Amino acid sequence: MSRWEPNARERLVGAAVELFIDRGYESVTVAEIAQRAGLTKRTFFRHFADKREILFGDQGPHRRLFADAIAGMPASATPLEVVGAGVTAFAADFSEEHRDFLAKRQEIIGGNPDLRERELLKRAALTAVMAEALGARGVKEPTASLAAEVGALALNAAYLRWLEPANRQAFPELADQALRELSTATEALR
Amino acid sequence: MSRWEPNARERLVGAAVELFIDRGYESVTVAEIAQRAGLTKRTFFRHFADKREILFGDQGPHRRLFADAIAGMPASATPLEVVGAGVTAFAADFSEEHRDFLAKRQEIIGGNPDLRERELLKRAALTAVMAEALGARGVKEPTASLAAEVGALALNAAYLRWLEPANRQAFPELADQALRELSTATEALR
Repeated sequence: MSRWEPNARERLVGAAVELFIDRGYESVTVAEIAQRAGLTKRTFFRHFADKREILFGDQGPHRRLFADAIAGMPASATPLEVVGAGVTAFAADFSEEHRDFLAKRQEIIGGNPDLRERELLKRAALTAVMAEALGARGVKEPTASLAAEVGALALNAAYLRWLEPANRQAFPELADQALRELSTATEALR
Repeated sequence: MSRWEPNARERLVGAAVELFIDRGYESVTVAEIAQRAGLTKRTFFRHFADKREILFGDQGPHRRLFADAIAGMPASATPLEVVGAGVTAFAADFSEEHRDFLAKRQEIIGGNPDLRERELLKRAALTAVMAEALGARGVKEPTASLAAEVGALALNAAYLRWLEPANRQAFPELADQALRELSTATEALR
């Protein structure tokens, strides 16, 4: 078998998600995923460190999207406007063609406590990136952390709405809407 | 050896924390903790499921403290006043006599990625309890989730300040102060 396999990564992800949905995440082995994709275990491990990494790839590009969008906002922007730029840049990176896959992925994550933990950690890491990027712009604590939490809440709410089967709105539009709702909610706190 | 050991739980926790600080969390075994405490492994496992549980005990009582304090607030209270009651009840449950132990515990957690993950999950669970208790009072989304995140930020900031060696303020006082700072910060968001 040749070292290079066309679309190996996509084939492995597709095979894994099908198997996870059919039989549950826990009971599926790497060997079965490779077999279903018509590839070897060796090829699997050239692309992923383990089974969990199929669902949680490299977070680096997403973190950079946030950090760059936040750093690029004018000095006059308010903390929520700055966070909004990061959230919109993040949401724009998810295309409609991946929505079905991501909905299945979310279903798999929801059914497994370890995967839910991993999802929470990913969210905490992205929140920390936003808070740091705000701090680098001179936003003081606790405002920077609070604005980052608002961004994380907006992104999470918009993401789940986007994945709903009946939804017809684009992710960036939903993110913008969620952020506006949260901005209004800050007035109802006290 | 008799089945009942006086203060077995406290002796195990004390021995474990000493060993974790001296030699690092990863390298210490349950057998070593039991030996240092003058107890058997069997006794250890009557009190704790594993090594990690020494640092993360039963979260049930803390969750109930939050839920009860929130449920007990008058209907006229604002979401942040309600969250404040939960945060204060939680903080009041930590006594000065445990501060040294908790500072060592925090040092151990800070040095280990798995323990930091566990700490994040604990925080997410407490935030969810606050959001649910607010929802049960009729506070709508996303206000309930936002108020709960503000409570979690206040509690975390106050806890870390309380554990600083130079600190002389009580935890509930610091929690109240952190919540007031965050309440002011909500005005600087937009």
